[in-house]
Amino acid sequence: MMALQFQEAHMKIAKNVQNLPQSYIREILKAATAPGCLSLAGGLPAQEHFPMERLTKIFSDIPDKPELFQYGETRGYPALIDFLENARSTPKDHSTLITNGSQQALDLIARTFIDGGDIVALEAPSYLGALQVFSLCQASISCVNQTPTGPDCDQLESLFATQKVKIFYAVPDFHNPTGVCWNLDTRQKVAQLCQHYGVLLIEDMPYRELRFSGQTLPSVSSLCPDHSLSTASFSKVAAPGMRLGYVQGKSEWINALIRVKQASDLHTNLPLQYGILALIEHPDFATHLTRARSAYQAKYQHLTALLDREIPELGQYTQVDGGMFLWFELQHGDDTSIAQHALDNGIAVVPSHVFYPGEFSAPAALRLNFSHCAITDMPEAVTRLRKAITQG
Amino acid sequence: MMALQFQEAHMKIAKNVQNLPQSYIREILKAATAPGCLSLAGGLPAQEHFPMERLTKIFSDIPDKPELFQYGETRGYPALIDFLENARSTPKDHSTLITNGSQQALDLIARTFIDGGDIVALEAPSYLGALQVFSLCQASISCVNQTPTGPDCDQLESLFATQKVKIFYAVPDFHNPTGVCWNLDTRQKVAQLCQHYGVLLIEDMPYRELRFSGQTLPSVSSLCPDHSLSTASFSKVAAPGMRLGYVQGKSEWINALIRVKQASDLHTNLPLQYGILALIEHPDFATHLTRARSAYQAKYQHLTALLDREIPELGQYTQVDGGMFLWFELQHGDDTSIAQHALDNGIAVVPSHVFYPGEFSAPAALRLNFSHCAITDMPEAVTRLRKAITQG
Repeated sequence: MMALQFQEAHMKIAKNVQNLPQSYIREILKAATAPGCLSLAGGLPAQEHFPMERLTKIFSDIPDKPELFQYGETRGYPALIDFLENARSTPKDHSTLITNGSQQALDLIARTFIDGGDIVALEAPSYLGALQVFSLCQASISCVNQTPTGPDCDQLESLFATQKVKIFYAVPDFHNPTGVCWNLDTRQKVAQLCQHYGVLLIEDMPYRELRFSGQTLPSVSSLCPDHSLSTASFSKVAAPGMRLGYVQGKSEWINALIRVKQASDLHTNLPLQYGILALIEHPDFATHLTRARSAYQAKYQHLTALLDREIPELGQYTQVDGGMFLWFELQHGDDTSIAQHALDNGIAVVPSHVFYPGEFSAPAALRLNFSHCAITDMPEAVTRLRKAITQG
Repeated sequence: MMALQFQEAHMKIAKNVQNLPQSYIREILKAATAPGCLSLAGGLPAQEHFPMERLTKIFSDIPDKPELFQYGETRGYPALIDFLENARSTPKDHSTLITNGSQQALDLIARTFIDGGDIVALEAPSYLGALQVFSLCQASISCVNQTPTGPDCDQLESLFATQKVKIFYAVPDFHNPTGVCWNLDTRQKVAQLCQHYGVLLIEDMPYRELRFSGQTLPSVSSLCPDHSLSTASFSKVAAPGMRLGYVQGKSEWINALIRVKQASDLHTNLPLQYGILALIEHPDFATHLTRARSAYQAKYQHLTALLDREIPELGQYTQVDGGMFLWFELQHGDDTSIAQHALDNGIAVVPSHVFYPGEFSAPAALRLNFSHCAITDMPEAVTRLRKAITQG
């Protein structure tokens, strides 16, 4: 009996894993992928816009290159890094680390820079995957409200002035979950605040290339290059199944990240790094991106026209200029039970509380993805959504 | 001035990263890959034995499958998991997680099960990548000596009986760095000890398929299936640049690992999981493995014949039945300075101390890899090694 207790006590999982917030999308995956269920839930790009023709050509060349199948450098495939640093005019004292999607970049940043109890600031609501990696490192999370033009800068300054904030995590372009894009004033102000208070800005840019209207604004990290790390992903512009992303910033910080990456998985696979380089350096890639952006814009316009026509009295959303998400604020009702009713009615959406850390009180809202659902399915999706919302 | 101090204090990297042991191989990479330098250092498989012909065929089929480029399940590509579980007769209440090489499996295990201060037992010497992941989680490392047939079981039992050991990490087949393969008695005894004391055995099996003489023995995890997790890699049997491996064990533990994997990088890329499945399920794969094993045996025999003939008075090694490494115990001299002299003479080897945690006193020895160096380069490699050792 003693032995058994001893044994069970030993097999407990680590405390910070016990407290790890779970992915709602992964939890409802079975229901959401059941036959007949429509989904406005996941952040999935449209499969019909993957650049399969180019990839076919690229993959047929790979196997002549056995060096791509040997161990490689931890920082990544050198030719890919050179291309990215040229394309983004990376400063000379900055460098790049290739990662398994930008999610791994966030995880490495949290592991490299956060000691338990360090303060990380976020906008609320925020991306769940970021909440997860900071939670795993036992960071203390502090939130500021999001406005239609970005974080509330007065709140942010007051937070920076009164607490030793180590990291501010942000998604300035087409935020997940709200779709908000920061205006230029906010970008400049946040860059100044990070510089003044010595806070490390983590600028997460997975959706930046998916602008379909309005003017591209400077990245916030370009406004405070020595106080920031930027993470980017090929998941939304090429294909998420390849799991490729990268992080850029001051070389001393990238070198620290490389040490943790090396212990974590030695390096990112080489064949797909070669593949993504061949894809993005080809002149056709610009055409592919333009086509994907137009397709997302068409889907966005179609979905919002349906919301305007079918359920204007049940909630409201703010227009977006890109990305993959709409934030639908409910007039009445509880988003958690509405999301469950929606699943029961064969339409998956994500309730607001998923994007708020811990005990933070979440407004009643739903995140609606417009990039994945076929346009022909959207009328039925909105009909089911109306039914779920009216069931409360 | 105050602002600057504030700022610098904030940008410090996490304590456990500051203390992270560095990879010797990565540190000497530049010198070891300089033109003319020969290497017996890294654990690199022989590039000329990568299955490039089959891979060519496989990759040419991939792009017809856009579903491989969409987001996938965190646990891995279902068809690959089914194949592995069939091939290894995985018990029904066990499951599998596909990882970015077995290094990521070790990292996820450490992150999932270790709270700071938990005790992890290892043989000394041990694999540096394991020392790194346990160090990152602030485990307390306890070592037992390695004998020619495996760990000293009396020491191990005394350790288990007197300390609350949570994990015992082991490489029973063709150990890195020594090449030792545990005998059957040791396997049975260790399995019993883990069961009796409620210790989780982590059986790391990257070299298990590389046996070129003697009889295959049961894996230790198969002797204590409910007290173990086993990690395996495709790096040594297929190609390391693909960064694919997996971990198997009781489903409740694999499910905990999956939660951390999801936060860490969502899932392992799908195109290469498809590629490895197509490779290993094809009847030609057995032929490929047989050919690779014979090639490694020939290289091993060639290198040991040279050591016997050219430098018998400078040290001794124990015969191995597989894997990639020889452990050359020096008669005289300091392994660290000999490894530096070796580099200066154009031959890379790894000094013993790299494989011993912290303050543990390491015997004077060198790890010699025999899988990567061309047979035609081996005479010159041994000549340079003799020069370095005699320089002391």
